Amino acid sequence: MSPTRFVRVLVDGTPRHGCFVPGAETIALLDGDPILGAHRLTGEVALEGARLLVPCAPSKILGVGTNYRRHAEEMGKPIPDEPLLFLKPPSALLDPGQPIVRPRGYERVDFEGELCVVIGRRAHRVREEQALDFIFGYTILNDVSVRDLQKKDGQFTRAKGFDSFAPVGPWIVPDLHPGRLRLQTRVNGALVQDSSTEDLIFSVPRLVAFASHVMTLLPGDLLTTGTPAGVGNLAPGDTVCITIDQIGSLENPVVEAPLED
Amino acid sequence: MSPTRFVRVLVDGTPRHGCFVPGAETIALLDGDPILGAHRLTGEVALEGARLLVPCAPSKILGVGTNYRRHAEEMGKPIPDEPLLFLKPPSALLDPGQPIVRPRGYERVDFEGELCVVIGRRAHRVREEQALDFIFGYTILNDVSVRDLQKKDGQFTRAKGFDSFAPVGPWIVPDLHPGRLRLQTRVNGALVQDSSTEDLIFSVPRLVAFASHVMTLLPGDLLTTGTPAGVGNLAPGDTVCITIDQIGSLENPVVEAPLED
Repeated sequence: MSPTRFVRVLVDGTPRHGCFVPGAETIALLDGDPILGAHRLTGEVALEGARLLVPCAPSKILGVGTNYRRHAEEMGKPIPDEPLLFLKPPSALLDPGQPIVRPRGYERVDFEGELCVVIGRRAHRVREEQALDFIFGYTILNDVSVRDLQKKDGQFTRAKGFDSFAPVGPWIVPDLHPGRLRLQTRVNGALVQDSSTEDLIFSVPRLVAFASHVMTLLPGDLLTTGTPAGVGNLAPGDTVCITIDQIGSLENPVVEAPLED
Repeated sequence: MSPTRFVRVLVDGTPRHGCFVPGAETIALLDGDPILGAHRLTGEVALEGARLLVPCAPSKILGVGTNYRRHAEEMGKPIPDEPLLFLKPPSALLDPGQPIVRPRGYERVDFEGELCVVIGRRAHRVREEQALDFIFGYTILNDVSVRDLQKKDGQFTRAKGFDSFAPVGPWIVPDLHPGRLRLQTRVNGALVQDSSTEDLIFSVPRLVAFASHVMTLLPGDLLTTGTPAGVGNLAPGDTVCITIDQIGSLENPVVEAPLED
């Protein structure tokens, strides 16, 4: 098991790919996208104080509705018989540490801590038994959602599609087993989600196989796996931090959207 | 009013940008993406027999539910009070003339002929009165949809997200007024949709302004404006052709998806 973490980092105003091992004090910079293959070391920057970016550049961000048994219960929803897919736009991506912009005029803008799959190879109609071979690694995604709009629209696109509604990071961990990872979310330090991917209704390989039978998944695409019980509202001034075992923590503050001109 | 048409075309296996005026026999090749600004002529290829591609490279494809009054009636839906947004993945894009792949096992895989907006400038919270300034031009999109799955899932993502379910083209026309364009769809030559953008519930400027208040629209992004009355099923062997005044015709054959291995 390689414990390497893959990041994208801003160096002198330019986004660069990089990697490091836990305990290291520097990020080794790479001359290309490790998801696409060949890459050489070309320098290093200090890890402390590094401005990390969303760790990949997805052509699409696929999400899955109700996929934890206890979250289905809290939302009063039945256990689905197959995954329910939705999309978030790439314009919603947000770097680690950057502020989630809460739109004005809504009651519930919820955090949703999620384990997120990063696709490594073009996946078209792959079988569940082979699905893990098409995964580059894992990261954390906060599937921020305006509940008011989810109900009003029926479609999730607007509710989950605002700019800044897809914080992702802080890095990608290639080698881990996704079946038994503890996931915890804290708002202002208070524990609000505490679950394990053991509670998933549809496993990671099942989700990748299912999605790949609808649409071709490309290297760098994100497939986020749903959120456990404990979702709740974010207010301006809050800080939300999602921690997943063997990956790390994704933290973002919350600010209110500016008034219209 | 410049009658220039902007295309992407395959030249010796490489996608190139190009343009031509109606009546021309050649496509002038450009050294960059005209949507992003500066471009010089660098050669030409014959228009006849040219292998045209989707005319831009969108980071997202936004669609709008029920947006023609008579289509609302045929679907038994009320007139909405605001636009209902959904997303199609970029993996669904299909070049003009290439086959729509009909997935097996569904009753209704419908064509939906649509006027499609191509964004020209980054649009974030723009006003309706300024919205036309953020548009590069217009093209045609076929919003292919599995009706069975639209009903089953509620979310449109799977129903509208299969590979090949977003034929777009054949080119982009920058200078036209979107408010009164005739749109006709023919299946195997028989007229099935015959409407005008006068029947739109939400106008093009309203849609761009509305969407830009949710998510930032980027140059090359597509915003397709909904389909008029007359939608219907496509069978393998069919050919579907959508014609919009002052733009042209987008034609695609239909084939059946291969069996699983």
